[in-house]
Amino acid sequence: MRAGGPAPGSMIVVSSRLPFVLKRNSDTGNLERKSSAGGLVTAVAPVVIQAKGIWVGWPGLLDDVNEPIPESDPGDKTLTAGLLSENVVCVNIGNALFDSYYNGCCNGTLWPLCHSMPDRAQFSVEDWKAYTQVNEMFADQTIHALHLLQRHKPASVTPLIWIHDYHLMLMANGVRQATDDADLRCKLGFFLHIPFPSWDIFRLFPWADEILQGMLGNDVVGFHIEDYCLNFVDCCQRCLGCRVDRKNLLVEHGGRSVRVRPLPIGVPFDHFVHLAETAPKVVMFPNQKVVLGVDHLDYTKGLVHRLRAFEKLLEKHPEHIEKVTLLQISVPSCTDVEKYQDLKEEMDQLVGRINDRFATYTWSPIRYIYGCMSQDELAGFYRDAAVALVTPLRDGMNLVAKEFVACQINQPPGVLIVSPFAGAGETMHEALICNPYEINEAAEVLHRALMMPEDERTLRMNSLRCREKANDVNFWMRSFMEQVGSQIEEDASDVKSVSMHPVTVDDFEDYLANYIGHSHKVALLLDYDGTLAPIAPHPDLAVFPLETKNILQRLSNMPDVYITIISGRSVDNVMKMVGIDGITYAGNHGLEIIHPDGTKFVHPVPAELEEQVRELLKNLQDQVCKEGAWVENKGVVLTFHYRETPTYVRAEIVPQACKLIESHGFKIGVSHCAVEARPPVAWNKGRASIYILRTAFGYDWSERIRIIYAGDDVTDEDAMQALKGMAATFRVASSRIIRTAAERRLPNTDSVLMMLKWLERHLSQREPGVPASYQISPKGQEGQRLKLLSAIRAVSTSFYVVCGV
Amino acid sequence: MRAGGPAPGSMIVVSSRLPFVLKRNSDTGNLERKSSAGGLVTAVAPVVIQAKGIWVGWPGLLDDVNEPIPESDPGDKTLTAGLLSENVVCVNIGNALFDSYYNGCCNGTLWPLCHSMPDRAQFSVEDWKAYTQVNEMFADQTIHALHLLQRHKPASVTPLIWIHDYHLMLMANGVRQATDDADLRCKLGFFLHIPFPSWDIFRLFPWADEILQGMLGNDVVGFHIEDYCLNFVDCCQRCLGCRVDRKNLLVEHGGRSVRVRPLPIGVPFDHFVHLAETAPKVVMFPNQKVVLGVDHLDYTKGLVHRLRAFEKLLEKHPEHIEKVTLLQISVPSCTDVEKYQDLKEEMDQLVGRINDRFATYTWSPIRYIYGCMSQDELAGFYRDAAVALVTPLRDGMNLVAKEFVACQINQPPGVLIVSPFAGAGETMHEALICNPYEINEAAEVLHRALMMPEDERTLRMNSLRCREKANDVNFWMRSFMEQVGSQIEEDASDVKSVSMHPVTVDDFEDYLANYIGHSHKVALLLDYDGTLAPIAPHPDLAVFPLETKNILQRLSNMPDVYITIISGRSVDNVMKMVGIDGITYAGNHGLEIIHPDGTKFVHPVPAELEEQVRELLKNLQDQVCKEGAWVENKGVVLTFHYRETPTYVRAEIVPQACKLIESHGFKIGVSHCAVEARPPVAWNKGRASIYILRTAFGYDWSERIRIIYAGDDVTDEDAMQALKGMAATFRVASSRIIRTAAERRLPNTDSVLMMLKWLERHLSQREPGVPASYQISPKGQEGQRLKLLSAIRAVSTSFYVVCGV
Repeated sequence: MRAGGPAPGSMIVVSSRLPFVLKRNSDTGNLERKSSAGGLVTAVAPVVIQAKGIWVGWPGLLDDVNEPIPESDPGDKTLTAGLLSENVVCVNIGNALFDSYYNGCCNGTLWPLCHSMPDRAQFSVEDWKAYTQVNEMFADQTIHALHLLQRHKPASVTPLIWIHDYHLMLMANGVRQATDDADLRCKLGFFLHIPFPSWDIFRLFPWADEILQGMLGNDVVGFHIEDYCLNFVDCCQRCLGCRVDRKNLLVEHGGRSVRVRPLPIGVPFDHFVHLAETAPKVVMFPNQKVVLGVDHLDYTKGLVHRLRAFEKLLEKHPEHIEKVTLLQISVPSCTDVEKYQDLKEEMDQLVGRINDRFATYTWSPIRYIYGCMSQDELAGFYRDAAVALVTPLRDGMNLVAKEFVACQINQPPGVLIVSPFAGAGETMHEALICNPYEINEAAEVLHRALMMPEDERTLRMNSLRCREKANDVNFWMRSFMEQVGSQIEEDASDVKSVSMHPVTVDDFEDYLANYIGHSHKVALLLDYDGTLAPIAPHPDLAVFPLETKNILQRLSNMPDVYITIISGRSVDNVMKMVGIDGITYAGNHGLEIIHPDGTKFVHPVPAELEEQVRELLKNLQDQVCKEGAWVENKGVVLTFHYRETPTYVRAEIVPQACKLIESHGFKIGVSHCAVEARPPVAWNKGRASIYILRTAFGYDWSERIRIIYAGDDVTDEDAMQALKGMAATFRVASSRIIRTAAERRLPNTDSVLMMLKWLERHLSQREPGVPASYQISPKGQEGQRLKLLSAIRAVSTSFYVVCGV
Repeated sequence: MRAGGPAPGSMIVVSSRLPFVLKRNSDTGNLERKSSAGGLVTAVAPVVIQAKGIWVGWPGLLDDVNEPIPESDPGDKTLTAGLLSENVVCVNIGNALFDSYYNGCCNGTLWPLCHSMPDRAQFSVEDWKAYTQVNEMFADQTIHALHLLQRHKPASVTPLIWIHDYHLMLMANGVRQATDDADLRCKLGFFLHIPFPSWDIFRLFPWADEILQGMLGNDVVGFHIEDYCLNFVDCCQRCLGCRVDRKNLLVEHGGRSVRVRPLPIGVPFDHFVHLAETAPKVVMFPNQKVVLGVDHLDYTKGLVHRLRAFEKLLEKHPEHIEKVTLLQISVPSCTDVEKYQDLKEEMDQLVGRINDRFATYTWSPIRYIYGCMSQDELAGFYRDAAVALVTPLRDGMNLVAKEFVACQINQPPGVLIVSPFAGAGETMHEALICNPYEINEAAEVLHRALMMPEDERTLRMNSLRCREKANDVNFWMRSFMEQVGSQIEEDASDVKSVSMHPVTVDDFEDYLANYIGHSHKVALLLDYDGTLAPIAPHPDLAVFPLETKNILQRLSNMPDVYITIISGRSVDNVMKMVGIDGITYAGNHGLEIIHPDGTKFVHPVPAELEEQVRELLKNLQDQVCKEGAWVENKGVVLTFHYRETPTYVRAEIVPQACKLIESHGFKIGVSHCAVEARPPVAWNKGRASIYILRTAFGYDWSERIRIIYAGDDVTDEDAMQALKGMAATFRVASSRIIRTAAERRLPNTDSVLMMLKWLERHLSQREPGVPASYQISPKGQEGQRLKLLSAIRAVSTSFYVVCGV
């Protein structure tokens, strides 16, 4: 952030809720604002205000807000009071949609999943659709906000769009697409406030691919701790097949390098110190050491475990009876789903039972408060507590631990106990670490905290306070903004690499060498346009680089290599474009195949179709070929090209063309600025690939042959599906968001060339003159066959090949 | 395995259940055997029989079996019939104990935990104790079996003890200890038949350390797939602080290198082919394509999801109505816990509802069989099914997938659908992979399977059958035995490294360089005996190597290093043994401290204790100092040494010495062949360490000072506890099974020397002449401080230091 504060128009914050809720006054019918507090609001609201930025969010009303948002109440002293109506853009969401989105997908699925409690997660396609839809609405409103900012921001300022939390994991791509199209510059950053689970948990989510690609729509993705970052990078590698750099925490997606960063959130430290200095002495518990718990009422918080641990303490160490009180403050959860109701009842009963068991005439072991408490009140409790028990079963960070530490201004200080399953347990390591699942051990840790000598308490608390003061919430916010901003690229000495190295030959060593090994023949199936040759304005201009041609030529001369070019072009055309002898060509998505010996296979097409093709061609040419649109005649397949037409014409002619194609009984295939008319036969690149392979190698090639398929088009997905599990598959994906059946993604045609170079190098290094079959080590072979896909998938994990077995 | 089959006496198999159950005939009162089938039994029983080996297990009776085990019934044609009573050792477990062990810990905790369903896991210390106890019983009976084998096995044969599954994760160490003591040679191998979860899930288990150390008691630990291996290696590194080698899948523990191996289990392929060839045609469903599911009734199997997916298929693709039948065979689970009852009811209702919805006059969509089925019957279904649906939510491997594939002898074959969350989904990648959580997608995959062209079906099934035939259950068993055996070490060309490289200086670069960085002073706190100097028969002989002395000397001259030697010896004695000036010495576990300037701190001990020390000394010398035992007088601490007494004397004098110590009001401290009498004061190496550090650096050193503590003794644990989260701590642990608060384990005193060498090198490479405080980069510092412990913990993950923030 530049000195003197943020530049005007430099910031849009997007969170599922605005920093205030709107309510409709039941008497006047007018809208009223009610401010929220909380660390995020405290830190971020002033920056939004100062930057004349915009906060995008849901205002907390379930009906539409069509009138202007009211200014804050004149008496409102909170930070959000400075957010004028011009600083706010509302996202209005209907009742049923909101329920499915918020209670369904966000809190019924993503919350338990990210907290590694998969059994609690419900997977519903309806909720997922609602989530998708709401994220689109947020993207739309964010683009609207960006347009508003454009009006008064200096041209030199690139606004940061900062998206928050698991409610909005999908929206970045929508914003990116729209800003790219409209040539609006912005930076996109995302921060996840909850944990990110390991791949083995996250992959259960049926739409994991979409979520990951949504997050990768940002320039920077921030998490609290490094473990979450590494989990995310793992997921991108294993679920999406992205190239990743674990050392520098980078993920390649859509041709960009996305930075993944551990940015542990902090609290407004000085603010809490001030509150602690001014809060009146807590006189609720005279002559008592207070053990304090403050939590939302949620199953992730381990509240029942905590009460049981306290009970066990009194049982095993009765010296604390009448000397220690557990003060548990439980804040109601925003949603009142049934399970929270169950938890509330369970808590009430347990508190009652333990109090019954241990209470004396003058003392009751547990004081349980269910409700909200002001920060001022809390600060007093934080300050005067002997021990804070922060023992969630799973927690992204946990700010109570940090607020407690900030308020510990008394000498000697108290003791913080933290669960290792909270982000705070990772970063606040001078706290006592306590596994909440083991009641006996938790009781012992609590005993140790209550008995800890002053010097150890002082040392530990000093270290904790020192870190939290330095890494407060403002530090966190600055860190995030600097990560997204460009300045970090300037200071090279201090900064790790911010973009991934381009694909090199060696990149393929890790994941192809184990697959291909030293003995197998290789069948190479390659799409042409967008895979070997860069996409060009006209098909005739899509010539592939000489280097690619030469290497394909050399590969085709190797005895262990079998090459097929498989294209949507007519077979004669692709043969002409490639111009290499002795390989197989498949045209029209495999409807026509020319084998290396010159024999030709043509998939049977009913005779009556040929008449229809002629008719369709004529109609297309007559009715929709205007302003540069034209039809390519590829025999049984026609392609309607509109790449050179103006945008406004496309809206008219493309749907017309589609209608014509369908009305003639043909199937529509959409590709780069073109629509194909394909005959209605059950044949595609997948069927054709299998036909080619079984013709060349029979039905029992799995032990002898290794398959590599590379393609960039949606029609290549048929082949990737058909070959899934039997081939190394690469999808060339430059910038689009796709779901692919391929094992791996490659950014461009250059990286396909690198793959071919690797293959040539690898095969050349094999022992010359020895036929492949003699090189098979019977021992090594089994292991390598077993490893087929895992070898391709897990690039950076090392492999153990089952040897000697 | 040598040619000609296993050597006599070469094998003991240990599994929670024997391969048959014993029942008491209610009429005669006699024991009767009832054989079990299953892949494991089929493969392993012949080897045990051939090797004249022994099978150790629970016989399935809940009362004690005191009579000899009966031979099998003459009519018994199963493989286990050959297991004579001399080949069997029973483990008898009482009713309540068995329930707590089996239904409690095994199936109530470890099963859901290992299947990554932590919410279903109950953590109970009572169940854990039962688990520990039963594992000890299994260890005892295994040692008994080993003694039985000794009688008739050739001297040259080293028996393999092969322990199976999650019921017996703890027992290896008991066997190892006893065989070491009795000088019996054996090899220990363990195979886990269920998944091993990621660290982030496994660490929830409060006794994760014990389980991991139990597994590391083996020479080889086998899992189905590499992901499980890597999860286990991660856990050993992050939970135990072991050195690991992820590339070669090795873990160092107790001075040994444990091999971790992916060994996917197979099925008796040829046996199933034979069954399929002879089974009569299934005529249950004329003119129907059968979709087959065969599963134990268990929540991990995804049965409800499967039925829903089939319902969705009929809804979305009604062309399958009256043409396809789902045959779901559910085998009752061994335990009839309530949740299985619930599941059974849910299944019944769902089947009824779906059948109601879609049934026609001649057709009912789902045939649901709840009960057992013979292998012969199953083989017919496997052979004639069009599709097998193997869609567990989580599964170690899943043998149904493999049995189905073996039985697919018809042409053209059917299609296998497998969940990616089963081990089979990883290894059988030519199957169609289907996430069972997404009902819509599962229906589409099922549709694709039913519609798949013959050539693709043939190719996929050929590949699958080819692998499963080669990697059948015998192959698996041989692989395991060869991994445990010694022969793999001979064939170096084919085999990866089987032991970890010794600790080198560079090992510390990864986890200390990030911690210490380029600017901090280092406080080094080191125990003497067993840490710097190898343990010797007499304390006076425990001299430390000159190299260690020289490096400590040089370190002590560096301005940025502060050294303390902290020992159980008297302070004068340790000072004499070390003999380096200008450093701090703490003796008697910190009760006496001599600072570098010569000033001395003596922890106050009540005057009356001094009299008691004299009295205790006299009594010990008079009453228990016989046959080489003697008392070392260290002022307020006395040490009773018995290292040189014969074993049979120890049993008498050690308890006597303990009794004397306690009767004089002193605390007992047990160390290597010695018992200490310590004054009853709340002071230990932990309190002393903190005292030394705050005296030297004040209370605010966290930003300036980095602490390294290394010790080998249980008294060092006090310091590791007190410094936890504030220091890099190393426990030198040669061979014992311990729970340590240290971050890292080191195998011996040599590795401590390596650590000192690293420190010298690291500090010498700092810029000379620049005081430490000037080298602090304000940007780097925050990141590095944040990283303290994670840097120490996660050796092989790479780090991103938050820079520029």
